[in-house]
Amino acid sequence: MIGLEQIGEIARSTPSKIVLLVIDGLGGLPHPETGRTELESAKTPNLDRLAREGICGMIDPVGPGITPGSAPGHLALFGYDPLKFTVGRGILEALGIEFDLKPGDVAARGNFCTMDAKGIITDRRAGRIPTEKCTQLCQLLEAVSIAGVEIFVSPVKEHRFVVVFRGKGLSSQLSDSDPQREGLSPKAVSPLSAEATKAANIANKFIERASATLADRYPTNMVLLRGFARYPDFPKMSEVFSLKPAAIASYPMYRGLAKVVGMEILATGATIEEEFSALAEHYNNYDFFFLHVKETDIAGEDGDFDRKIRIIEEVDRALPRLIDLDPAVIIVTADHSTPAVLKGHSWHPVPFLLRSKWCRPDGVEEFSERACVSGALGSFPATDVMPLALANALKLGKFGA
Amino acid sequence: MIGLEQIGEIARSTPSKIVLLVIDGLGGLPHPETGRTELESAKTPNLDRLAREGICGMIDPVGPGITPGSAPGHLALFGYDPLKFTVGRGILEALGIEFDLKPGDVAARGNFCTMDAKGIITDRRAGRIPTEKCTQLCQLLEAVSIAGVEIFVSPVKEHRFVVVFRGKGLSSQLSDSDPQREGLSPKAVSPLSAEATKAANIANKFIERASATLADRYPTNMVLLRGFARYPDFPKMSEVFSLKPAAIASYPMYRGLAKVVGMEILATGATIEEEFSALAEHYNNYDFFFLHVKETDIAGEDGDFDRKIRIIEEVDRALPRLIDLDPAVIIVTADHSTPAVLKGHSWHPVPFLLRSKWCRPDGVEEFSERACVSGALGSFPATDVMPLALANALKLGKFGA
Repeated sequence: MIGLEQIGEIARSTPSKIVLLVIDGLGGLPHPETGRTELESAKTPNLDRLAREGICGMIDPVGPGITPGSAPGHLALFGYDPLKFTVGRGILEALGIEFDLKPGDVAARGNFCTMDAKGIITDRRAGRIPTEKCTQLCQLLEAVSIAGVEIFVSPVKEHRFVVVFRGKGLSSQLSDSDPQREGLSPKAVSPLSAEATKAANIANKFIERASATLADRYPTNMVLLRGFARYPDFPKMSEVFSLKPAAIASYPMYRGLAKVVGMEILATGATIEEEFSALAEHYNNYDFFFLHVKETDIAGEDGDFDRKIRIIEEVDRALPRLIDLDPAVIIVTADHSTPAVLKGHSWHPVPFLLRSKWCRPDGVEEFSERACVSGALGSFPATDVMPLALANALKLGKFGA
Repeated sequence: MIGLEQIGEIARSTPSKIVLLVIDGLGGLPHPETGRTELESAKTPNLDRLAREGICGMIDPVGPGITPGSAPGHLALFGYDPLKFTVGRGILEALGIEFDLKPGDVAARGNFCTMDAKGIITDRRAGRIPTEKCTQLCQLLEAVSIAGVEIFVSPVKEHRFVVVFRGKGLSSQLSDSDPQREGLSPKAVSPLSAEATKAANIANKFIERASATLADRYPTNMVLLRGFARYPDFPKMSEVFSLKPAAIASYPMYRGLAKVVGMEILATGATIEEEFSALAEHYNNYDFFFLHVKETDIAGEDGDFDRKIRIIEEVDRALPRLIDLDPAVIIVTADHSTPAVLKGHSWHPVPFLLRSKWCRPDGVEEFSERACVSGALGSFPATDVMPLALANALKLGKFGA
């Protein structure tokens, strides 16, 4: 596979524009009664038109049989090998609340929990306290101070919070303090490599002082930390692809993932219509747009087959606004499948279409899992999406003499 | 991907023969009026017959979206990973004039140019002097002598020449002296790695003495060098594939590329007919033939859709002479696409057919971009071509116990 460095050598900036529309969790499985997937059940005249005018295929975000999390699913679409460029749990949590992470920050997911007099965890979620209470407790913990490191404690939802350590030379090679079961004591955080000793000491000090701070706050008298991760210092899309990229996403985590690869984050309303409005508004100022629609994934996770159909149809109705902007390349695909019948992310390949003036049409007549299988692109890894996008926008020079 | 070493362990010499016919730049894009590509427009009964009797697919010479130069496009077909086995610009220029390069030679592309009294380049091409004048100037420069290194200066065309440095331990990790713009001074050649210091000194001395030699030759009073490259010492096809390979190519650069991988270069006339005659003449003496047709690529680069059709038809008419020789394996494909509508190399996958007694026919009825998409081989990397060729000629043993 061609690497980012080699792409970087042949990528060139041009005025042509690329729009990558990610319909989260788009891929599905047949409804037991109709035998048709969500996408195959939806009326999608505009997607079908793009499929007819473009080239189609099926992408494997990470690899055949592999169910991707949101981070690897998106990083692959952005051209970053998800096996090499990884984003840890703590960082994803922080991105999800739009914490302003800096390179080198180490973040962990935290729970407020209940500990008995013997130091045994009796409730890992402290009775799922309301978010407002979590917010108050986080403010208490922000007073914890440790020499040489800045500490940020931010509420997420109910008993969940994020702690971020900012300082020089912090490794995230750390074990969890969360024993993952009730009836056990919290574990000490251990360094998993020699250079993580400093970070382990800091994490353990933080837990000790948090425990002291919370001592009389039963049932929220302890914290559990897990998923320590470092904010990655990935090469930016502007460097590797010579693009000026922007992201339109109503959910914070996807804005966060876009920021990790150096996209500009554009303000947008929460609805699909508003996201397409943001695209039109900022269209002249960037040459690459990542446009993210979240609701399909949520409907899939909820097992709501019909709602997923309705959202796909809503996206289709909004599409003419994108098509009228006439970008050099339009791509429609997803970060993974979320079949309503499975109520979760799945390993199934994802339908893909690319329309440009320079693609070689392949006779696919509609945008669906079944039709895309016979597209000219066949089955291919999601990391090929960016080279194809750049090529079809005439943004790649020749490789080799 | 299986590597050359692993292939080497299972490859065995047999009398069966393989012919790899490369129709340069064969892949195309639809004509705006007819919706058919060059290949789809051409009458090709013999290619269609081979497609029917064989297996088809689409190859990506370097990778999806990547437009290959001639060197990576061919090296991939010869079984050499083009991301790993690279040939630099200076070497390609030298191959293009059939300079007899030796392993370790360092070559650069040169321009005769015009420099004013202040040392500023006023014309990077010295008014595109006639080739005869370039030849005379090259003879003058061949008199430049530097201790410890042999220097060869050969004319290419108009203001272009090639300089080759032959000596021990010469690195090609050198920056260009050519500033690529007029209004600037020539740059000193800098070593890009520690071991390149010696080569940089030699290159700078050469430029200094060339400048002195040309001092009173205004407007050709200076030289600019770029694309320093070392003649690669690739493993030979005879070693890695246990083949006795030969090349038939009317254009020098392709003969040069064939030489790089150890093919014997056969004498041939310039026409397609003469190339097929050379194949018949030498057929008994080798077990692998690379037969190269250049004119399709030139027609594509010229944007001449109809001429590209005519050349494809000319190749098709010559084909029975190849088929009658009855080689164990016939492959017809290209090093890259050169769609006439794009007037240049492109990233589009390349149609591929392989006919042998042992292939599993796939229902493809004609040789075209559209038909090959549904071939049994699907889309695949060009580096798979040699293993498929060897296997279908029964030249590969079992892998593993």
